[in-house]
Amino acid sequence: MDFAFDRDTEELRERLLAFMDEYVYPAEPVLQEQLAAREDPWSAAPVVRELQARARERGLWNLFLAGHPEHGGLTNLAYAPLAEITGRSPRLGPAALNCAAPDTGNMEVLAMFGTPEQQERWLAPLLDAEIRSAFAMTEPAVASSDATNVETAIVRDGDEYVVNGRKWFITGALDPRCAVFIVMGKTDPGADRHRQQSMILVPRDTPGLTVVRGMTVYGYADDDHGGHAEVVFEDVRVPAENLVGGEGEGFAIAQARLGPGRIHHCMRLIGMAERALELTCRRVLERTAFGRPLADQGVVREWIARSRVEIEQLRLLVLKTAWLMDTVGNRGAHTEIQAIKIATPRTVEGILDRAIQAHGAAGVSQDLPLAGWLAGARSLRLADGPDEVHLRSLGRAELRKYA
Amino acid sequence: MDFAFDRDTEELRERLLAFMDEYVYPAEPVLQEQLAAREDPWSAAPVVRELQARARERGLWNLFLAGHPEHGGLTNLAYAPLAEITGRSPRLGPAALNCAAPDTGNMEVLAMFGTPEQQERWLAPLLDAEIRSAFAMTEPAVASSDATNVETAIVRDGDEYVVNGRKWFITGALDPRCAVFIVMGKTDPGADRHRQQSMILVPRDTPGLTVVRGMTVYGYADDDHGGHAEVVFEDVRVPAENLVGGEGEGFAIAQARLGPGRIHHCMRLIGMAERALELTCRRVLERTAFGRPLADQGVVREWIARSRVEIEQLRLLVLKTAWLMDTVGNRGAHTEIQAIKIATPRTVEGILDRAIQAHGAAGVSQDLPLAGWLAGARSLRLADGPDEVHLRSLGRAELRKYA
Amino acid sequence: MDFAFDRDTEELRERLLAFMDEYVYPAEPVLQEQLAAREDPWSAAPVVRELQARARERGLWNLFLAGHPEHGGLTNLAYAPLAEITGRSPRLGPAALNCAAPDTGNMEVLAMFGTPEQQERWLAPLLDAEIRSAFAMTEPAVASSDATNVETAIVRDGDEYVVNGRKWFITGALDPRCAVFIVMGKTDPGADRHRQQSMILVPRDTPGLTVVRGMTVYGYADDDHGGHAEVVFEDVRVPAENLVGGEGEGFAIAQARLGPGRIHHCMRLIGMAERALELTCRRVLERTAFGRPLADQGVVREWIARSRVEIEQLRLLVLKTAWLMDTVGNRGAHTEIQAIKIATPRTVEGILDRAIQAHGAAGVSQDLPLAGWLAGARSLRLADGPDEVHLRSLGRAELRKYA
Amino acid sequence: MDFAFDRDTEELRERLLAFMDEYVYPAEPVLQEQLAAREDPWSAAPVVRELQARARERGLWNLFLAGHPEHGGLTNLAYAPLAEITGRSPRLGPAALNCAAPDTGNMEVLAMFGTPEQQERWLAPLLDAEIRSAFAMTEPAVASSDATNVETAIVRDGDEYVVNGRKWFITGALDPRCAVFIVMGKTDPGADRHRQQSMILVPRDTPGLTVVRGMTVYGYADDDHGGHAEVVFEDVRVPAENLVGGEGEGFAIAQARLGPGRIHHCMRLIGMAERALELTCRRVLERTAFGRPLADQGVVREWIARSRVEIEQLRLLVLKTAWLMDTVGNRGAHTEIQAIKIATPRTVEGILDRAIQAHGAAGVSQDLPLAGWLAGARSLRLADGPDEVHLRSLGRAELRKYA
Repeated sequence: MDFAFDRDTEELRERLLAFMDEYVYPAEPVLQEQLAAREDPWSAAPVVRELQARARERGLWNLFLAGHPEHGGLTNLAYAPLAEITGRSPRLGPAALNCAAPDTGNMEVLAMFGTPEQQERWLAPLLDAEIRSAFAMTEPAVASSDATNVETAIVRDGDEYVVNGRKWFITGALDPRCAVFIVMGKTDPGADRHRQQSMILVPRDTPGLTVVRGMTVYGYADDDHGGHAEVVFEDVRVPAENLVGGEGEGFAIAQARLGPGRIHHCMRLIGMAERALELTCRRVLERTAFGRPLADQGVVREWIARSRVEIEQLRLLVLKTAWLMDTVGNRGAHTEIQAIKIATPRTVEGILDRAIQAHGAAGVSQDLPLAGWLAGARSLRLADGPDEVHLRSLGRAELRKYA
Repeated sequence: MDFAFDRDTEELRERLLAFMDEYVYPAEPVLQEQLAAREDPWSAAPVVRELQARARERGLWNLFLAGHPEHGGLTNLAYAPLAEITGRSPRLGPAALNCAAPDTGNMEVLAMFGTPEQQERWLAPLLDAEIRSAFAMTEPAVASSDATNVETAIVRDGDEYVVNGRKWFITGALDPRCAVFIVMGKTDPGADRHRQQSMILVPRDTPGLTVVRGMTVYGYADDDHGGHAEVVFEDVRVPAENLVGGEGEGFAIAQARLGPGRIHHCMRLIGMAERALELTCRRVLERTAFGRPLADQGVVREWIARSRVEIEQLRLLVLKTAWLMDTVGNRGAHTEIQAIKIATPRTVEGILDRAIQAHGAAGVSQDLPLAGWLAGARSLRLADGPDEVHLRSLGRAELRKYA
Repeated sequence: MDFAFDRDTEELRERLLAFMDEYVYPAEPVLQEQLAAREDPWSAAPVVRELQARARERGLWNLFLAGHPEHGGLTNLAYAPLAEITGRSPRLGPAALNCAAPDTGNMEVLAMFGTPEQQERWLAPLLDAEIRSAFAMTEPAVASSDATNVETAIVRDGDEYVVNGRKWFITGALDPRCAVFIVMGKTDPGADRHRQQSMILVPRDTPGLTVVRGMTVYGYADDDHGGHAEVVFEDVRVPAENLVGGEGEGFAIAQARLGPGRIHHCMRLIGMAERALELTCRRVLERTAFGRPLADQGVVREWIARSRVEIEQLRLLVLKTAWLMDTVGNRGAHTEIQAIKIATPRTVEGILDRAIQAHGAAGVSQDLPLAGWLAGARSLRLADGPDEVHLRSLGRAELRKYA
Repeated sequence: MDFAFDRDTEELRERLLAFMDEYVYPAEPVLQEQLAAREDPWSAAPVVRELQARARERGLWNLFLAGHPEHGGLTNLAYAPLAEITGRSPRLGPAALNCAAPDTGNMEVLAMFGTPEQQERWLAPLLDAEIRSAFAMTEPAVASSDATNVETAIVRDGDEYVVNGRKWFITGALDPRCAVFIVMGKTDPGADRHRQQSMILVPRDTPGLTVVRGMTVYGYADDDHGGHAEVVFEDVRVPAENLVGGEGEGFAIAQARLGPGRIHHCMRLIGMAERALELTCRRVLERTAFGRPLADQGVVREWIARSRVEIEQLRLLVLKTAWLMDTVGNRGAHTEIQAIKIATPRTVEGILDRAIQAHGAAGVSQDLPLAGWLAGARSLRLADGPDEVHLRSLGRAELRKYA
């Protein structure tokens, strides 16, 4: 047992920390200005592309793609501490390194299950950040936490599949650069529960595909990274070779896609929590009320201490999960992958809430990123199924040890 | 001791409940459409004025104005249960009855401390909902929980006062109908801590007054009721007779303004919580996952029960506080006024959070009002000073019993 | 709506407060000495009987017995604030006024359902505090939260009933003065779920009744008031006329017995919380660490404020429930009776925990009553069924409004 | 970074797990019987000595003594997972391996700071479990969280020191085998804050040393391992060579003593939590109410899942802290040592509380160990200073990064 990062990881961490200091943090106000000034309310800010160029030069590119060192991918354990660092500037850091969701999960799917043709057409430009992509699974009409509820139909018709259905909270889909959707639907509603679903690639400009609107999360459109779209598929026809994997493999692919994404999300949330704690410390040292700095008053030090203790525990749990995925595989790490999903968003939400409270009215406003981060953490208590579903599943697994 | 509403209150509750059913709830989708269609992003929706006409016809007008039955005002205890009912539709209910903040507090100030001329010019049109008003106290540069921190200067110069300062989170100020600001500032920085401040009326079109921007709360601009403005006062000159009360009375007026507003806010939050609980019950009875309605699964019934138990306790505490204010005055009810501020927003935030979780992704989106309500409840943990300041003050009061 | 106590209640409160000051608090150290010095480890301390004589002189006797003013009984609402005051000294106050559980509930049962002969033999000496009694319902072998689980058999045999079964946590049964048990068992296991049970009076000296041992609660034997016994009934024969009410009425009697007891328990817990808060305030004002009184440090004032705010809410909820029981009956107050059971023990446990923490090591020790009180509050989260059963039931009731 | 135990640790874990199965768990009911049957209410049960013989044969002896492999001591990181396993049977496991507090800390002090004579006289028999020892630091009259408050005087008088003072919560002191106290007191009240204190060895039979009484913790006397004594030192004279280290080194020795003990305590609490979770799972699978096993109802699975997720996080935090102590020393691990003290007792208390609730009335009784364990966990929120002192200290350390 060894809690130190290895030398390569330390080197990469330092390189990335320097990159954050030199490029990313200074780009934060630039991002705000560019977003305010753009014409298309869903277009990306030019500064992102500039950061991407700098990151690629420094070898900080596609690091998330575990199992594919040829593209720069690290192991889950090696990438995790870097994901944390990018989370300190969540609107710029991950995108700068081409490590932003949902493209990361989509690249994983294509790298694992895509045909050479699919990889050439979609994976290659994604790896180069030339296009973006979306993952269309959640549906408004049903509880998507139960994957067997999916109602979107993918029906074979000659050399084509015809897609019909309605999806929402499709992150990134409103970004004009979003070129392709991976769509989850049912090819065989009569098959076994977990063999009914398939995944298929639908280019964005396919007739019948309509992006209806952007959904907001606590008032945020998340318009800097393509929002969360409601999308309708009406008799959308794509060639049969657009299927990812075989018919009936949709559920298995979705499961495979989940693990690494959880690590990324959770580590980024931890980075966010670290930055919020830093902002809090600076604020309470400098802000004065009733004749003393806030740092010397009431519960403030307790808050800071609790946040520190919580962060340390979360980080260790997520790192251990990454290590398990690398050593025994995603399936062997199933319980831990659920555990980090249960523990991280909720705990970080609490840390961010205390940070906001320490900042007063500024904390809830657009002048600080805290409220937006909290909305992001909050929505992760629902994404991939509400926490309660995972709690019950994890509880059942624990009970099985004694049944 | 008697926990039943008296007959007049029961009659008014029924009248208001009927008004809500007949007019307010049906107007909610209309509001959404009108807001989406308007040109000025800060203008009010026409449906509000229509509701106001209907409410006035029915004698549901200015009910909040305790101590002024000639304007329709009820006692705090009589008004409180009605405020709760308006809170079930917080964007329409209070405005429909001309009982919306910050106008209510401003009308109270003018009714209590205004000169006949001030009342004629500003109170009369406010009572008729012909204009709106703002209350400018919070400043970005200092911790406004400590009123002695206020930096805005109000300096006598001949027959005029000259105002200089910067305020923010000035609710309602972006509404084009907002005609006047009550501004808190210092007329005598050398006086005793609580005699330095004064309040002065500044018409919105006075030269030197600039509304800089709207502040957001968790991504919400609150643009349906005039937002939360940042406002700069630069050599703003107003006649000396615009002073409210005398020089040095600003702090006392602010204190007097606080009590009833707390009752209103808290009762509306309770109405909001009731409606969120109703939405939750309907949702979990109708939504199915894993083959059963959500209502039959896991923690859902516990959540509902906890929310019910919490609401009952909050309501009693707020009603008792209203009763105390009516019987022993705002000063005698000081501890209770702090208590409801401490207990209500935080508890209702938790109730809303569970409601959101029960609704899945829809809960955080614009399709349901829950996330917006939660942002409102959250911001009330900071408004009038963060909860922590009130907790310490209430704790000190408790300790004084034994010192 | 009126939150003031009426004049009679105010008068009784003052009389009782004076009685506490003059007799009860001074008797607390005497109780400790007498308990330490007694020979029979389950016998009561003589000081209790002295207090009873004083209380009876002052008309503070049997006040709990709602519906029976001829015995001194007040309404639930009138008695509730007095129960709170007795809870400030929970080992002496309730016993001094002959208002201690489980005798109170047993007297209610006998007054409501007893025959004149049963009342003469058992109720009369209980009203005079000449004997004590026990209520035998909970069984070790089954989940007693589900009353249909009761396994004790009460079988008719000629002019007698024969009782067989095992009970535990039978409070008061180890007190040598305990003369009679009201035993819940099944007379007809084949009847409808809620018609299977009956209650029967079993004199303590009946052959076949064995008090096996005292159960502890967090290490406390509660040996000052008869402990919590495990009791075996082996072919215990009692005359048929010992049945309370008719066959099959056991469940209904148990339900009728619950309501007032909940009010008593909850109000006493609130009194306990008030005294714990008082002890805390005195302690933190006087104790110094790191050069300042604890009262000036960190979270201490927050703790005190939270406890105050929680107590106020609990008291109002319990008082309203008492009022409801008086005005619409126990059945009409069913939801509120569940609500106070859910809210009070848990919240008071938290208040006591903070009080302990503020007292340091002394707080968990025998030198202060706090840890013992906490154990009592904790056990009430299980007594009459664990809170979770009540939460689910209350949640179901809420859902029924919309189904 | 590597989250796997090394091979030696795995081997020791298996050996210890086998020892627990074969000897320790079967001895639990024997312990109960022997304790009930003994004459001296403070004497140890004979079964402990039998277990010690077995453990020593198997090389499971004095494993805690980091830095002293010659006595069997492992590193902190190697010992930690074994401490966890002993914590599954907290009354027998640690004692069986001669790894029970406070002897462990006292042996560390003697091994680090003792003279050869002191080591021969006291350390040797402690290492052989021939005697037991106590550590006398906490005083009733002052807040002992602030070490400068210590009032006990250690005054040089010729070749002797004279000790005067009152201590309490001196764990183990009532055990008849307890032969020596390490007493903390002040040799120089005028010196710098952290140079006033010294430690001195006082044999138990020294004239003037009186063990007054045992303190209880939530009703528990902890009489199986020597209780928690109140002790008076009245003109107690010991030879000058009984001083441990030099004059003024008491504070530094106390600090050095703390770190490993925290690891031990926390890992044992984690073992306790694991066993409580196991008991809970077995219980809810087998217990039925309302026609279904508890495992299928309401919040039960959520509880189990939360406990699992919390345990995993705690264990990683404590193991990392042990690793830090081994690699950078106790001083370098200061923040983490505080963090585990803050996080572990409180979280384990919550886990035990849920376990109790799942067991109904049995959970709070002597028939299960849960309530006793909870009392132990609870008292650790106060031991070594209340959590709040550590939270503020940790918060201050975090703030110093930015000051």
